[in-house]
Amino acid sequence: MAGNSFGTLFRLTTFGESHGRALGGIVDGCPAGITLDVEAIQKELNRRKPGQSAIVTQRKEPDTVEIYSGLFEGKTTGTPIGFAIHNTNQKSKDYSHIKDSYRPSHADYVYDKKYGFRDYRGGGRSSARETASRVVAGAIAKQMLSEIKITAYVSQVGDLKMDKNYAELDFNEIENNPVRCPDPKMAAEMERYIKSIKKEGDTIGGVISCVAQNVPIGLGEPVFDKLHAELGKAMLSINAVKGFEYGSGFAGVRMKGSAHNDQYNADGSTKTNLSGGVQGGISNGMDIYFNVAFKPVATVLQGYETITKDGEMVQTQGKGRHDPCVVPRAVPIVEAMTALVLADYSLLARTNRI
Amino acid sequence: MAGNSFGTLFRLTTFGESHGRALGGIVDGCPAGITLDVEAIQKELNRRKPGQSAIVTQRKEPDTVEIYSGLFEGKTTGTPIGFAIHNTNQKSKDYSHIKDSYRPSHADYVYDKKYGFRDYRGGGRSSARETASRVVAGAIAKQMLSEIKITAYVSQVGDLKMDKNYAELDFNEIENNPVRCPDPKMAAEMERYIKSIKKEGDTIGGVISCVAQNVPIGLGEPVFDKLHAELGKAMLSINAVKGFEYGSGFAGVRMKGSAHNDQYNADGSTKTNLSGGVQGGISNGMDIYFNVAFKPVATVLQGYETITKDGEMVQTQGKGRHDPCVVPRAVPIVEAMTALVLADYSLLARTNRI
Amino acid sequence: MAGNSFGTLFRLTTFGESHGRALGGIVDGCPAGITLDVEAIQKELNRRKPGQSAIVTQRKEPDTVEIYSGLFEGKTTGTPIGFAIHNTNQKSKDYSHIKDSYRPSHADYVYDKKYGFRDYRGGGRSSARETASRVVAGAIAKQMLSEIKITAYVSQVGDLKMDKNYAELDFNEIENNPVRCPDPKMAAEMERYIKSIKKEGDTIGGVISCVAQNVPIGLGEPVFDKLHAELGKAMLSINAVKGFEYGSGFAGVRMKGSAHNDQYNADGSTKTNLSGGVQGGISNGMDIYFNVAFKPVATVLQGYETITKDGEMVQTQGKGRHDPCVVPRAVPIVEAMTALVLADYSLLARTNRI
Amino acid sequence: MAGNSFGTLFRLTTFGESHGRALGGIVDGCPAGITLDVEAIQKELNRRKPGQSAIVTQRKEPDTVEIYSGLFEGKTTGTPIGFAIHNTNQKSKDYSHIKDSYRPSHADYVYDKKYGFRDYRGGGRSSARETASRVVAGAIAKQMLSEIKITAYVSQVGDLKMDKNYAELDFNEIENNPVRCPDPKMAAEMERYIKSIKKEGDTIGGVISCVAQNVPIGLGEPVFDKLHAELGKAMLSINAVKGFEYGSGFAGVRMKGSAHNDQYNADGSTKTNLSGGVQGGISNGMDIYFNVAFKPVATVLQGYETITKDGEMVQTQGKGRHDPCVVPRAVPIVEAMTALVLADYSLLARTNRI
Repeated sequence: MAGNSFGTLFRLTTFGESHGRALGGIVDGCPAGITLDVEAIQKELNRRKPGQSAIVTQRKEPDTVEIYSGLFEGKTTGTPIGFAIHNTNQKSKDYSHIKDSYRPSHADYVYDKKYGFRDYRGGGRSSARETASRVVAGAIAKQMLSEIKITAYVSQVGDLKMDKNYAELDFNEIENNPVRCPDPKMAAEMERYIKSIKKEGDTIGGVISCVAQNVPIGLGEPVFDKLHAELGKAMLSINAVKGFEYGSGFAGVRMKGSAHNDQYNADGSTKTNLSGGVQGGISNGMDIYFNVAFKPVATVLQGYETITKDGEMVQTQGKGRHDPCVVPRAVPIVEAMTALVLADYSLLARTNRI
Repeated sequence: MAGNSFGTLFRLTTFGESHGRALGGIVDGCPAGITLDVEAIQKELNRRKPGQSAIVTQRKEPDTVEIYSGLFEGKTTGTPIGFAIHNTNQKSKDYSHIKDSYRPSHADYVYDKKYGFRDYRGGGRSSARETASRVVAGAIAKQMLSEIKITAYVSQVGDLKMDKNYAELDFNEIENNPVRCPDPKMAAEMERYIKSIKKEGDTIGGVISCVAQNVPIGLGEPVFDKLHAELGKAMLSINAVKGFEYGSGFAGVRMKGSAHNDQYNADGSTKTNLSGGVQGGISNGMDIYFNVAFKPVATVLQGYETITKDGEMVQTQGKGRHDPCVVPRAVPIVEAMTALVLADYSLLARTNRI
Repeated sequence: MAGNSFGTLFRLTTFGESHGRALGGIVDGCPAGITLDVEAIQKELNRRKPGQSAIVTQRKEPDTVEIYSGLFEGKTTGTPIGFAIHNTNQKSKDYSHIKDSYRPSHADYVYDKKYGFRDYRGGGRSSARETASRVVAGAIAKQMLSEIKITAYVSQVGDLKMDKNYAELDFNEIENNPVRCPDPKMAAEMERYIKSIKKEGDTIGGVISCVAQNVPIGLGEPVFDKLHAELGKAMLSINAVKGFEYGSGFAGVRMKGSAHNDQYNADGSTKTNLSGGVQGGISNGMDIYFNVAFKPVATVLQGYETITKDGEMVQTQGKGRHDPCVVPRAVPIVEAMTALVLADYSLLARTNRI
Repeated sequence: MAGNSFGTLFRLTTFGESHGRALGGIVDGCPAGITLDVEAIQKELNRRKPGQSAIVTQRKEPDTVEIYSGLFEGKTTGTPIGFAIHNTNQKSKDYSHIKDSYRPSHADYVYDKKYGFRDYRGGGRSSARETASRVVAGAIAKQMLSEIKITAYVSQVGDLKMDKNYAELDFNEIENNPVRCPDPKMAAEMERYIKSIKKEGDTIGGVISCVAQNVPIGLGEPVFDKLHAELGKAMLSINAVKGFEYGSGFAGVRMKGSAHNDQYNADGSTKTNLSGGVQGGISNGMDIYFNVAFKPVATVLQGYETITKDGEMVQTQGKGRHDPCVVPRAVPIVEAMTALVLADYSLLARTNRI
């Protein structure tokens, strides 16, 4: 169990390297009887796909998912859903320059130390290409959770931070711009900024915010498997993520309890929602919302000094087709991981009571 | 599996309510042959104990751990270590006022909805008293990890934020003040502030920073079980935690890749450490450091309005013996959860290679 | 995870050595709202207790279970149920003779090789005393499964084999004799035989048969976690078990398919039940029945030659208070493990469909 | 987690229906650095393949495995090994006769009850075709366990039982006959018998014996995860298996302890091996051997009465291409499952001691 599975009952296991023959996965534990829209899965995958706009990597990969099992006459059968995405545009030669040296702030060095050697082509298993499998599984989870609405969007790129609360935003705007920021003016600024960063051969970080609405009360286990703890792990498992906060988050530490407590309405809803929809690790029926911090992509198209396998310092140069900013393409990944957590915890919650 | 276990190979399972007969746990998977200092375990527990200073809850509980199994002639035997802490100072009557109404931002409401009823005494299982078991297990893990040094401390209380990097601090100062802040001047300010908050019958949030030093290269699994993802889940599973960031964290999103990348020295160490000791989910031998955000404790000793089980609005008043600020007592808990993750991932890392 | 947990959703974790301070366990995942009869748990434990008749070990241990958590006002709360049984009659000196030498067909040798040393007192963790915790958890599981009737009994001791099918037996007779064989005449023969074996200072093997009635259709997962596979593992995990067969078992290999197939009645029940209540790994609503083979207890009160830690041959003599035949006391253990499997699989089966 | 994974550290997850597009799996946790012979994997698969002799099903399927990931320059990388076997010879029309009625002693009925409907083509997920994925994974495990020799063979078909101990057999004979029985005379008898059974349109059961030699001391966890318990579960999870016994097995119940105990030699080996290589759940370095009972295949090519989905009795007729006796093709499956258990427990055993 080298950590390539996620979830207890609704469980995804993935495989695949950036430049191998295929990547894919198995969703085990998906309940029987869900009418599955395979095109909707492909659509989610297209949101993550390279080459979709000028501000993302220009690699051309169709990323077509093939579903091998677990579906019969359009419905899930309760058996595992196996799927694969075949790689078609591997240019392994692009990566010969990193074969023997370690890219700074990449996983190259630790892979070599941990495993004794590594598949260096495109970062191998450490490539964010792996997340394509998560998007497929997340799209299945979303269809299982048809009542719940999960929406992620870019809320910050570098210093450009959208200070609006999610309730003030029009989520319909998210897919109307390549940044996936629901505020059109801010989106335009962000787009310009990312383009300028790209021109420098540099990269920049960002924040994705996510909201899950209409989540039933009672998801989450009280102690180690608190709902927000699992969401946190899910997000932190995405490449380049450096932080996670939900509800009031880091800002909440500055508040007094008297101001931070969410007062109840008679129906059990709360007047405020600094709790972020989770109390004691369990969903309380209010919106769940959280922020995910992404560092700048490590691959910069600039010269840099680094070390070789043999500990020699070398001067080298970043190349290849890379994202100047990871957050636009990471939006569907954040949604997918959220869906996986909620699907799994929905099933777990079926066993609370006799 | 209602979420009361943590870890894959070095695995802690806990039980116990705030006002039940006892709480405790089982550590399964602790390797044989560790000479275990039981007093050192009790010492860690004493750091978490109520009543230890004027700025924490004044409950008096000895919190004495009894070890039932897994030790023979002073050494771990490789069999499960069962332990219990008997409750001695339960004043269940203190809690009759919350029997039928829900305290805002507490778990009362969601427990009732999830399970149909709840053990309301002292918050039952949702009480942070459960973390005593984590401290016991963490103290065992620390002894297993004798080479690794894990240090947590309070870096922020409300708006009082210590802006020093951990490298500038004298960790020996941490236990010299009741706040557990290594900067004596800041500690004194924080102490005064917590006392004033307490006088108001209010509470305040805070941040705990943690550093793990001398961690071997290679801990962490590349995809879902990234080392920092598991650390994040571990921290977010602690009561009152709202956020987690490691290395450059949320500040890192404002940086460019060219500035954020940690350049290598010839020996594989890095000149900077914005990665926070983890690359691609795997420890790289540099210090691991992270921040954990705690919200203000929800129990305020003030009047408030809330709802009853039957949906009626009632006016009530917080009472009992509570912490005005949770972070001083949470320091050993953060260390314990860190130790549990590192112990587990150390064992997992033994299986990387043939 | 050194294998001291059993079950996925209804999960038991145990601790404790034969001569440690206490043994016990944690049941995690027991649904909330079960009215738990604690005396019924103790009663099951008494069925397993030493000293209950002339044909079992004459050790005197009260084996009183204390429940520490997870119960409130007589009902399960959905939180983990921690429990302990304190050891009161350890005579560790009895075991000094095995400190340095290995008893044949015991776990002494492999423990030393695996862990580097062992707690030799009473066999330490390898003692069947550990199964007391299973009986406690099984008794909880039984109460959860109030509709299902689980009955185990002794069907063979040495060559004395009861050739009746379970349907011909009066289960009310089981507890009327110390052997726990439902056929009074055969029980008397078995009792006499065990007594003669005991007089020789020898031991003898036996078979326990078990029937689970009124099991709902649909328990069991199709591939690796087939219901009978988990039952098999559960049984094989009991000390001294050498074999497991269900339905037609080993005798079924001699049959032709045309004779072995269970023909359907119109209501979905089957005219015969060679399937043993499980088809394709899933319960079909018919009675589940199986046999469990127990070897003769390894400790014989006779002289024998063996080796020491240092590889020297020594002449020694078995002593202490031991069972001449393990099956009478193992009947409640077989029932407990069956209950644990069915409780767990009942919860898993709640997640089959959307 | 609907039970499609096997193992803790060396973990196989499978997918695929009999008549879907493909079946396959993911091996997670395979250590890095194993030089993997892909042809050897295909060879194992060929041993399980339909159409290989006159006494097995005459379906023609190439069963070619494609490996998608986890290999680089001929060696395992420590990342998951994804693989698929594409179905090429599905004749779904063959199965239209079972669409609405339930074949006796098949999984048809319970699938419908559990999931609400089923993929009836070729038995869907309940088909033994799923075991092809196990053979692939087992072949990888075998290569990891290069020191250990795992040998399975047919020891009984119907009443034809080979009474020789494995030590008296020449394992080189196993692959020399289509039955996979190492005794050529008995093999010829069995072959004739299976042919006569086939001519009747009937089926017959059998027993596979398996021996694992050169297993290191110390594999197996003492309580629930005893080595033989996991082996038992592994075997019982194979389609059509009805029983498992190891070492002295069911015959051992008739023995006295004084005769059953395996006396030690000075080097820790034992003079006899009724323990079957496992004591207290842990391997002791002696040969591990066990028997696995298979029922007769349920599909008989004869007329039979059964019920439809709507509970009507119908007269129908078995057809299609089926095995008259499952054991010859199940030999590589038994070996594969044995290898999976030993690989997993080898990795677990790395964590016994500090």
